[in-house]
Amino acid sequence: MNTTIETILNHRSIRKFKDEKLTKNQIHTLVKSAQQASTSSFVMAYTIIGVTDEKLKEELQKVSGHPQVTNNGHLFMFCGDLHRVQLVADDNELENMKESIESTEQFIVTTIDASLAAQNLAIAAESMELGICYLGSIRNDINRVSELLNLPDHVVPLFGIAVGYPDDNPEIKPRFPLDIVYHENQYANDEEQRQLLSDFDIELKAYYEKRSTNRRVDTWKDQMIRKYTKSLRMDVTSFVQNKNLNKR
Amino acid sequence: MNTTIETILNHRSIRKFKDEKLTKNQIHTLVKSAQQASTSSFVMAYTIIGVTDEKLKEELQKVSGHPQVTNNGHLFMFCGDLHRVQLVADDNELENMKESIESTEQFIVTTIDASLAAQNLAIAAESMELGICYLGSIRNDINRVSELLNLPDHVVPLFGIAVGYPDDNPEIKPRFPLDIVYHENQYANDEEQRQLLSDFDIELKAYYEKRSTNRRVDTWKDQMIRKYTKSLRMDVTSFVQNKNLNKR
Repeated sequence: MNTTIETILNHRSIRKFKDEKLTKNQIHTLVKSAQQASTSSFVMAYTIIGVTDEKLKEELQKVSGHPQVTNNGHLFMFCGDLHRVQLVADDNELENMKESIESTEQFIVTTIDASLAAQNLAIAAESMELGICYLGSIRNDINRVSELLNLPDHVVPLFGIAVGYPDDNPEIKPRFPLDIVYHENQYANDEEQRQLLSDFDIELKAYYEKRSTNRRVDTWKDQMIRKYTKSLRMDVTSFVQNKNLNKR
Repeated sequence: MNTTIETILNHRSIRKFKDEKLTKNQIHTLVKSAQQASTSSFVMAYTIIGVTDEKLKEELQKVSGHPQVTNNGHLFMFCGDLHRVQLVADDNELENMKESIESTEQFIVTTIDASLAAQNLAIAAESMELGICYLGSIRNDINRVSELLNLPDHVVPLFGIAVGYPDDNPEIKPRFPLDIVYHENQYANDEEQRQLLSDFDIELKAYYEKRSTNRRVDTWKDQMIRKYTKSLRMDVTSFVQNKNLNKR
């Protein structure tokens, strides 16, 4: 196993960072790493906003609810972005670019492009002995985050990544066994999947009972029930459409 | 610069592979690497289908149009997947999980989860001296791909990744200068962006004129105009909604 794969397999989200900022040089290396990810048809359909303003961080923390939004070495906000493409349409008075820009297909493109770039940044950071934590929680109030970052049409905030020097050493969290997420040639059948999910929950229950912090009685199924029986973030739908994305 | 960041910055899409298959061991290492990526609320909302059946590969190649769909060391198809969560809802007769499962928010979750896992797989592969190529082109006929892979409700094919031993050595393609994709605290203003995009196009034009293969006269703006004035893949919208995702 090489050091890159070791870094990848050693991933744990870090939620507590030392009080030390990243240097400009580190930030540039991370953004350059993000940028080299694959991008659909060379659109590069994302924007990263680095947040250094303490008041702005506090406002974002109110949306997220997590302390690592303010307490980190650097905070990167990842946005899906077709605004640059819209500028090209405007400057060339090309009304017929609109249908495509506003399609679900192109919303998928922006989300994938932003995510591939983000994961490059995450791996690059971890390879530098920094810790990272994704913050989907910024979508708790996506309208507010958009206002705070002054995002124009065709730009949606997707998630943050807090990066910094780890002040915590959590265990690596289990994942589904390979047979749940990886199939050959055809999607798996439901009965097989149900059995594998039940087996996984036995293993996961043992992990939650034994881990060093935050022990509890829990399973994957119970987590999914708790999560999905509350209809969370239903305002994301209209927010995205009001930004003229994912609307046709 | 460490070897992981070297790998990341050295990325080029490889479109021509040697006639050598990946071993089962290599495939497992790649999938395990994918799985260790961050996942929103532990949902692990994706499925990877490895395609080994030659006839199936040929059918997928007809959709994509690219030879690397059939000629590779291994083909991974990445799907956004809330089917496992739906099984939990069904088994517990929880009708009230439906609203959340069918939301745009959760469609974003599946797309991000699949993409983070995919990029881990891509970096892991490149660290093993393998080449990779993302295949968004499988969305040229997303209904057909879904049929071919036998995907149930709440599962959508997002992209493929062809992996293999490189039989090509293309140059690294430029990216936007950092100031286009990375801003601090606020989104950049349009006039600044327009200037930066024009400057970038001068640089890009020179790259296309000088590179070793497939020389042409082209700019980023012209590529965007060519791409977005054709309304491509508009059927993705109804396909995703028919899978009961992104529909409310």
